[in-house]
Amino acid sequence: MKHPLREHIEEIIAVTDDEFDFILGHFSPLQKRRHQFLVEEGKIADKEYWVVKGCVKSYFFDEEGKEHILQFGMENWWITDYESFVTQTPSKIYIDCLEDSELLYITHENREKLTSQMHKMERFWAKKSKFGRIALQNRILSLLKNSAKERYNVLLAQYPQLFQRVPKKLIAAYLGVSRETLSRLND
Amino acid sequence: MKHPLREHIEEIIAVTDDEFDFILGHFSPLQKRRHQFLVEEGKIADKEYWVVKGCVKSYFFDEEGKEHILQFGMENWWITDYESFVTQTPSKIYIDCLEDSELLYITHENREKLTSQMHKMERFWAKKSKFGRIALQNRILSLLKNSAKERYNVLLAQYPQLFQRVPKKLIAAYLGVSRETLSRLND
Repeated sequence: MKHPLREHIEEIIAVTDDEFDFILGHFSPLQKRRHQFLVEEGKIADKEYWVVKGCVKSYFFDEEGKEHILQFGMENWWITDYESFVTQTPSKIYIDCLEDSELLYITHENREKLTSQMHKMERFWAKKSKFGRIALQNRILSLLKNSAKERYNVLLAQYPQLFQRVPKKLIAAYLGVSRETLSRLND
Repeated sequence: MKHPLREHIEEIIAVTDDEFDFILGHFSPLQKRRHQFLVEEGKIADKEYWVVKGCVKSYFFDEEGKEHILQFGMENWWITDYESFVTQTPSKIYIDCLEDSELLYITHENREKLTSQMHKMERFWAKKSKFGRIALQNRILSLLKNSAKERYNVLLAQYPQLFQRVPKKLIAAYLGVSRETLSRLND
């Protein structure tokens, strides 16, 4: 059976056995319990995470202490604070686990090594980054353009499994609505 | 004197004369007058643009016909509808020129050719894409977290030249506030 990370990479670019061994050598496994942190505000996010199994969220608090969700991450998703990771400056956000989670991580240093030595992996992450950028652009369009009901429907259509795995109040925090509004949308 | 695109690329990665000639061979020059379109809603954005001289904006209309600005672009900025460009599907946004503009563009096909043949350019755009993603993430954080006054101050600090070159009503459309609110922020 193929390693799940290899299956994931090969959705974009084929790699040989040797190449995959070389790639995997740059990653480390990590187990985290529910509520444990991957990234904390004020600290440098030095690792990018790939979710093997589990569910995580990135989020921040506004000045009134209200939680806003930036992104959820489940199996096969990449997550970190990309600003902190890329620029190696303190993070503005938190990432923690919504479920006990099994992860692979790559350090900033190892990712630089791997991408500079291996065009295929530069290409893989370039493509992933493009799709990440598209998702963020659509989030902005949606925040500026759509009603709460429309944002709810888009999220439900894209990620139906989220609604099974994530508490309602976090769905509300992602959509930027109150839990009461969410209950009405839910009907 | 070095070509401005070469100077721009070499902020990230050094290239030889031959490499730069090869790169430049994938681009074409384009002159556009004020108000002319680079990208139109419903059409596929098949080109990525680099602004040699001038000023452009990407924007869309909400259901009430209100204009929202996604991004401005000035000298040395890259712009297209990345969702349409990457997935080759019809665009959801418009991009037009705020000033008479001089551009270089690369087609989707040429960009694929260039990046697959030349690791350095894959690396260049991967880095650019990372920074584009960071800008979008900060835009989301700012939309969810900050007051209009704070968003105004951030924009002014980052891009003071925008306030000289772009009409006030467009700054308001970027910040998501009315022109009246903007006048008060301006005081």
